[in-house]
Amino acid sequence: MADLASGKPSFRLGIAGLGLIGGSAGLAARERLGAEVWGWDADPAVEQAALELGAVDHAGQPPADVLLDVVLVATPVPALHDQLMAAVQAHPQAAVTDAGSTKGQLAGAQLGAHYIGGHPLAGAEVSGVENARADLFEGATWYLTPGPASEGVMLDRLHRFVQGLGAKPSVIDAHEHDRLMSAFSHLPHVLANVLTAGGAAALGDARRPVVGPSFRDATRVAGANPELWAGIYSANREALLEDLDEAIAALTTARGLIADADQHALAGWQRSAQSDRAKLLERGVGGGPIEEIRLIVPNRPGVVADLALTLGRAGISIQDMSLSPRPDNLSGEVALWVASDDAAEARSLIGEYEAKTS
Amino acid sequence: MADLASGKPSFRLGIAGLGLIGGSAGLAARERLGAEVWGWDADPAVEQAALELGAVDHAGQPPADVLLDVVLVATPVPALHDQLMAAVQAHPQAAVTDAGSTKGQLAGAQLGAHYIGGHPLAGAEVSGVENARADLFEGATWYLTPGPASEGVMLDRLHRFVQGLGAKPSVIDAHEHDRLMSAFSHLPHVLANVLTAGGAAALGDARRPVVGPSFRDATRVAGANPELWAGIYSANREALLEDLDEAIAALTTARGLIADADQHALAGWQRSAQSDRAKLLERGVGGGPIEEIRLIVPNRPGVVADLALTLGRAGISIQDMSLSPRPDNLSGEVALWVASDDAAEARSLIGEYEAKTS
Repeated sequence: MADLASGKPSFRLGIAGLGLIGGSAGLAARERLGAEVWGWDADPAVEQAALELGAVDHAGQPPADVLLDVVLVATPVPALHDQLMAAVQAHPQAAVTDAGSTKGQLAGAQLGAHYIGGHPLAGAEVSGVENARADLFEGATWYLTPGPASEGVMLDRLHRFVQGLGAKPSVIDAHEHDRLMSAFSHLPHVLANVLTAGGAAALGDARRPVVGPSFRDATRVAGANPELWAGIYSANREALLEDLDEAIAALTTARGLIADADQHALAGWQRSAQSDRAKLLERGVGGGPIEEIRLIVPNRPGVVADLALTLGRAGISIQDMSLSPRPDNLSGEVALWVASDDAAEARSLIGEYEAKTS
Repeated sequence: MADLASGKPSFRLGIAGLGLIGGSAGLAARERLGAEVWGWDADPAVEQAALELGAVDHAGQPPADVLLDVVLVATPVPALHDQLMAAVQAHPQAAVTDAGSTKGQLAGAQLGAHYIGGHPLAGAEVSGVENARADLFEGATWYLTPGPASEGVMLDRLHRFVQGLGAKPSVIDAHEHDRLMSAFSHLPHVLANVLTAGGAAALGDARRPVVGPSFRDATRVAGANPELWAGIYSANREALLEDLDEAIAALTTARGLIADADQHALAGWQRSAQSDRAKLLERGVGGGPIEEIRLIVPNRPGVVADLALTLGRAGISIQDMSLSPRPDNLSGEVALWVASDDAAEARSLIGEYEAKTS
């Protein structure tokens, strides 16, 4: 809301689409930026809910004399293009952005000098305005994808807006963005489906306890939200098709190595994946190297908790964790990833823990 | 050891290769079956260690007048064939089995009527006799793969032996076994390598926080133990090449669906993976349906522990768990899998937990 006492003009935000992202942006903008927020949605009940939750000041589009600083379009992917086109036309003074998970298509959509694509890496696990939180973007990367036509002042405004919501803006070319999303999210989803279908076919009607940890981990996202993912695959078609071609080529190469059964070549191929993984893990957790620790624990309530507490009491944060029941269903394999700096202490604590519980 | 008082003849076991599997079989056979165990290994120091740990009664091959009931060959894969051949020749009265992770090659190796392949689903995460445990096989599936030449009395003996160690014997055709291992373990390892190499190539030298949970889960096993896996890929070459061909064909099909961007067809494809996954999950945890619960927690020591404890206190066992830091590194996404019977209570406890901590 306008800071009337100081005469400082208020920041005016419009949000099209009041789901988790739109609602959270509204809450954060009101709370952190003192913004005045207009929000609209295809569903009037959602507008009402957003109003009641305090995610917006006003339901619906602003009157003609209200000049918005930023319009964030946070609708589902299929509606993005039309909503963005409507926004750049209705609010010619505003910086217009979106929160879609792919950016290449929109970059080519002639949305003008005031449109700059955006993609916050936040909030895929729950949806709806009822799950909106003012801190959803706290510390999250928020990609901004200006094109050759984008005005610098609009990028500057969006950069500060995103930062104001608590996120870390990261400027990236729209097509590079889509290539990264393809390699690190979309292709894994496709491969998970392929593995799952293959496993189901291999098992047929047999009831055999064969689903091991590698299969389980690799297929967690198989069949995720069918309508949403049909849209994501299509929206990022260009990059994903390239990655699929590369994956098929890489599998064909691997097939050749395995057909030759050349131990030296196969071990070398395996080692190169090992080194690639180590590099990626280091970057994935913000710079520091991390280490994997594996152990077997009895499969009963409280054991994992106890283990995590043991590490937590020593101030060691678990960066990543995977727990899989073993085929006996009496014990489980736990893989923990901790910062390398913590690894020696973690190993020693886990050793004591194992000695205590065995 | 011989039960001299009752005059009952002791069960005599020979073990070739005293690593985790061989050592654990020795401990279990002595403890649970009262067996007298001879163990030998290429490394005399390992024989000595096995003796000291009580995994064997005698280091080395038994004298000629000792008739072994069972010989278990638990050497690394490359040595299996020669050790099995030596065992069937040196111990013509014994049932001879092995613990190799693939079975097709050995099934065709003319090892005679006393050889029946075996594969305990246990113990891939640590190795060496120093990690051997008498309860390693407790409740674990132990595949037995008799061939057309196998004698029924030998299968019966091995079945009781494996059961005596605490495992659940499961009789399966050698080639079906290898196909299952290929689909549920070997192919996921190959795909993990392919994804990892693709991700490393896509990222180049950039330091961007793009490694999301789907990629992380799918690549956990990338580059696992290069020498061991070179051997496994080669040993199961036949089944794995078939699965690779099918995976390449399935990816080519998926490529076509994505190129067409037909939302209906893509959603249908995604849904079919969803239903395959649900079926596999139900079987993987021993019959009961399980459900996934996702939530966001602050990324600080003790939180996961506290959550697991909360469920544990209510008697709810976590079947599977995945924790991934979000890009902000301040919070993490937790995916929990619990028995469907527990799901409603788990959701309610998690809701209370979230309300308490937010």
